[in-house]
Amino acid sequence: MKLYENTQAPNARRVRMFLAEKGIELESIQVDIIKGENLQADFLSKNPRGLLPVLELEDGTCIDETMAICRYFEDIQPENPLFGHDAKSKALIESKNRQIEFDGLLPLADILRNSAPNFANRAIAGRENVQAISELIPRGKSSFLEFLNRLEQLLTQNEYIAGEYFSVADITAFCVIDFASWVKIEIPATHCNTITWYNKVVTRASALA
Amino acid sequence: MKLYENTQAPNARRVRMFLAEKGIELESIQVDIIKGENLQADFLSKNPRGLLPVLELEDGTCIDETMAICRYFEDIQPENPLFGHDAKSKALIESKNRQIEFDGLLPLADILRNSAPNFANRAIAGRENVQAISELIPRGKSSFLEFLNRLEQLLTQNEYIAGEYFSVADITAFCVIDFASWVKIEIPATHCNTITWYNKVVTRASALA
Repeated sequence: MKLYENTQAPNARRVRMFLAEKGIELESIQVDIIKGENLQADFLSKNPRGLLPVLELEDGTCIDETMAICRYFEDIQPENPLFGHDAKSKALIESKNRQIEFDGLLPLADILRNSAPNFANRAIAGRENVQAISELIPRGKSSFLEFLNRLEQLLTQNEYIAGEYFSVADITAFCVIDFASWVKIEIPATHCNTITWYNKVVTRASALA
Repeated sequence: MKLYENTQAPNARRVRMFLAEKGIELESIQVDIIKGENLQADFLSKNPRGLLPVLELEDGTCIDETMAICRYFEDIQPENPLFGHDAKSKALIESKNRQIEFDGLLPLADILRNSAPNFANRAIAGRENVQAISELIPRGKSSFLEFLNRLEQLLTQNEYIAGEYFSVADITAFCVIDFASWVKIEIPATHCNTITWYNKVVTRASALA
C-alpha cells in the first residue's frame, strides 16, 4: 500500500496521526500542492478530484477522503479502536468528527484559500481557475471563533472530544487547531478546557507524525 | 427514540430514506426551519448547532449529523448493509458519500442560502446574522456542474455510486439531485448514465420516504 500525501497538509497529517496511533507504517509519496502537482495528470489518475491524501491498495484501488482511509485501517486493524466501540460511541464520535470538519476545518480552508497568494486562482482545493472571494475571510473567521467557543463548551463536559476516550475526533480537532496557526488564530487564553485538552494531546507520540 | 426533522430538508430526507431501506419506523417531530424553530431554545437544547436532523435516544442522548444517525442504525441493525460489507467496500462507500456531500450538497446549500429570501441573513445553516455573499452563487453553480460531470463519469463504470450494490452513497446522491431542483438545476440531458441510475433509484419504495 502507498499513501499519497503532503507533510504540510492538515488532512494528510490526520491520516499520519491515525496510523501512528494504530502503529501502522506505510510507504509515503509526497505530492507538492503549492507547485500544483496534485492537479497534474499523474496524480489525477489516482484521484480525479485532485485532493490529498489518497491510499493506493495493493490491487491498485485508490481510496480518497481522509475519513475513508482512516476507516479502512480501523477495519483491517480494529485493536485500539478510534471510531468507538459500540453503536452509541461510534455515532457520537462520527457526529463530533463531522462537526469539527464542517465548523472548524472548512472555515479555515476558506480563510486560507481565499487569502493566500500561494493559492491565487485556486480558491477551492483540487480545482483550477477559481477566484478568491474576499468576503469569505471574515465569514470564515466568525465561523471559526464560534467553533472554538463550542469546543470549549464541549470540553467542560468531556475529557476528550467525544467522551472519556481519545478518538479520531480528537485527531481531527488537534490537527485543525494547529492548522489555525497558518491563519494566525490561536486558542483564546480564556479557553482553559481547550488548552488543557490540547496540552494533553500534544504529548502523544502520534502528535509528531 | 425520536427523530427531529423536517419533511422538506434534504438531510432529513436522507435519514428517512435510510430508515425506509432498513424497514425501521421512528417517531418523527417536525421542526420548521423557515420559521426558525431550529434556532429557538427548545431545539438548541437538543443540538446547539441548530441543525437537523437529530436523533434522541431513549436515555436522552442526542445525536446530530445525518451520517452519524444512519451509522447508528447500521450498527444496531446490520442486515441489508448500506455502508458496505468489508473493509474495501466500506472505505469506497465512505469516500463516495463524502465526495457527494462536499462536491454536491455543499455547493447547492451555498447557492440556496446565499440567494433565497427565506434565508435572508441566515446564509449558513443553523446560524443567525450571517449575510449572503452573492459571489457564492456562480461559484456554487460551477462546482455543482463539475460534480454532475464527475458523477456521470463515475456511473459509466459503476451500476451504483460505489460499485455494484445500492448504498448510502446512492441515497445521498439521489437526495442531492432532487435538492438541485430547488435551485432549478437538473441532470443534463446528455448525462445518460446518471439518468438511467436516477430512474432506477426513484422506483425504490424508500424514494417516497
